[in-house]
Amino acid sequence: MPTINRYVDISEVERESKKDYIDRHSPFIICDNKAKKGEKFKVKVKVGNEYSHPDDFDHYIAYVQLWDGDRLLGQATFTPGTLGNEKSQVEVDFYIIPTKKLKLSAMSYCTKHGLWESDPVEVEVID
Amino acid sequence: MPTINRYVDISEVERESKKDYIDRHSPFIICDNKAKKGEKFKVKVKVGNEYSHPDDFDHYIAYVQLWDGDRLLGQATFTPGTLGNEKSQVEVDFYIIPTKKLKLSAMSYCTKHGLWESDPVEVEVID
Amino acid sequence: MPTINRYVDISEVERESKKDYIDRHSPFIICDNKAKKGEKFKVKVKVGNEYSHPDDFDHYIAYVQLWDGDRLLGQATFTPGTLGNEKSQVEVDFYIIPTKKLKLSAMSYCTKHGLWESDPVEVEVID
Amino acid sequence: MPTINRYVDISEVERESKKDYIDRHSPFIICDNKAKKGEKFKVKVKVGNEYSHPDDFDHYIAYVQLWDGDRLLGQATFTPGTLGNEKSQVEVDFYIIPTKKLKLSAMSYCTKHGLWESDPVEVEVID
Repeated sequence: MPTINRYVDISEVERESKKDYIDRHSPFIICDNKAKKGEKFKVKVKVGNEYSHPDDFDHYIAYVQLWDGDRLLGQATFTPGTLGNEKSQVEVDFYIIPTKKLKLSAMSYCTKHGLWESDPVEVEVID
Repeated sequence: MPTINRYVDISEVERESKKDYIDRHSPFIICDNKAKKGEKFKVKVKVGNEYSHPDDFDHYIAYVQLWDGDRLLGQATFTPGTLGNEKSQVEVDFYIIPTKKLKLSAMSYCTKHGLWESDPVEVEVID
Repeated sequence: MPTINRYVDISEVERESKKDYIDRHSPFIICDNKAKKGEKFKVKVKVGNEYSHPDDFDHYIAYVQLWDGDRLLGQATFTPGTLGNEKSQVEVDFYIIPTKKLKLSAMSYCTKHGLWESDPVEVEVID
Repeated sequence: MPTINRYVDISEVERESKKDYIDRHSPFIICDNKAKKGEKFKVKVKVGNEYSHPDDFDHYIAYVQLWDGDRLLGQATFTPGTLGNEKSQVEVDFYIIPTKKLKLSAMSYCTKHGLWESDPVEVEVID
């Protein structure tokens, strides 16, 4: 079974290489903390916050998923080279229409270092 | 072989229901017409420009793809309900790093009305 | 974060409805326990062993993944209706070429009941 | 817009390198020509019939799709290395439950040479 690597706050990690390793593989959810019921709501998923990940043919982020609790909202799949083979941060904006409180989380998959899970993000949904 | 439905300018279509049918299934590419080489570049794919598509369990947009010429840049896959089962427009922002002139196109797939292709969009890439 | 439901031996589960619930959502890996290095090797993933799952528009198995340790080998994605809207068992055969001992596992995703993980299967790889 | 390369009978192609190029990229559908209504039916999609394709990091078959007319039945997505980086033939077996006559076709996508479409295959569905 694939290990699910979970994000840990890198400010509490001492070793620089480990900070980099954790940060560049972790998906981050960037969105408002409130959404309007029945209206389109943007959720950015970004892999790496302070550090960058390679986009090499043998080492790249192959997909990200956006979840609401146990429900998959969307999956974006990439082939190597989308980021011009530069060190960078995979980024994708999903647009969803919420009907009730969101418990968002994201997963990202690196072809060398496996599956990573974001911190959860709660979004209040107001009428 | 699946039919590839191609967008046609709906201002030249007479029948209202046909305008709606074509527009709500067609992916549109929204981005700047110039990009900087080696820098991240945002490309929005939106299904439907003036009209909206259902997000019903038996009738929804299941995926969109973004292509540069014959090269796939990314695919976003959805399950029904992501848009709260509302009539709306699927939307996803991809971020790519171009190295040379882009010839973008997008495909979208409706579970009832098949495969649709956008108008192509050329993006100049400058140093 | 999505819950990862793990298969438990249903012969140790008492309640019939719970046996059914667990079995019909769990992916099972069916393959030989030995593979020849460098030769094509078939791995079947089947969702449900003794029980069947609906293929309803609002309730279906949307994808299965096959993993070797922390490495994704393939993902098969479905739209509802592939199984004729019958109660049945999603099934897909992947073909891989192993280079060393395999530690296979599979994931399946139900649009109503989330993410499920198979028992792991080890495959010896011989020259 | 991506070019859709269509399979042509390679026995009518003279140049050996062109035979190889066409065959190794083309998806082939292998299944019985009759299916029983409401019963599970196996459809193999194989990329390359007589020739083999690389599974290199910068050159591999990234996905295959199986279509029934304009309806997508399933998509299998791969990361490079699934075939041990050997020259081989991507292969995946889908299982579907038909309700009426099938008009199957398959698509395969090579990260270097784009999108390819199989010959169509008709399957009679009997009660």
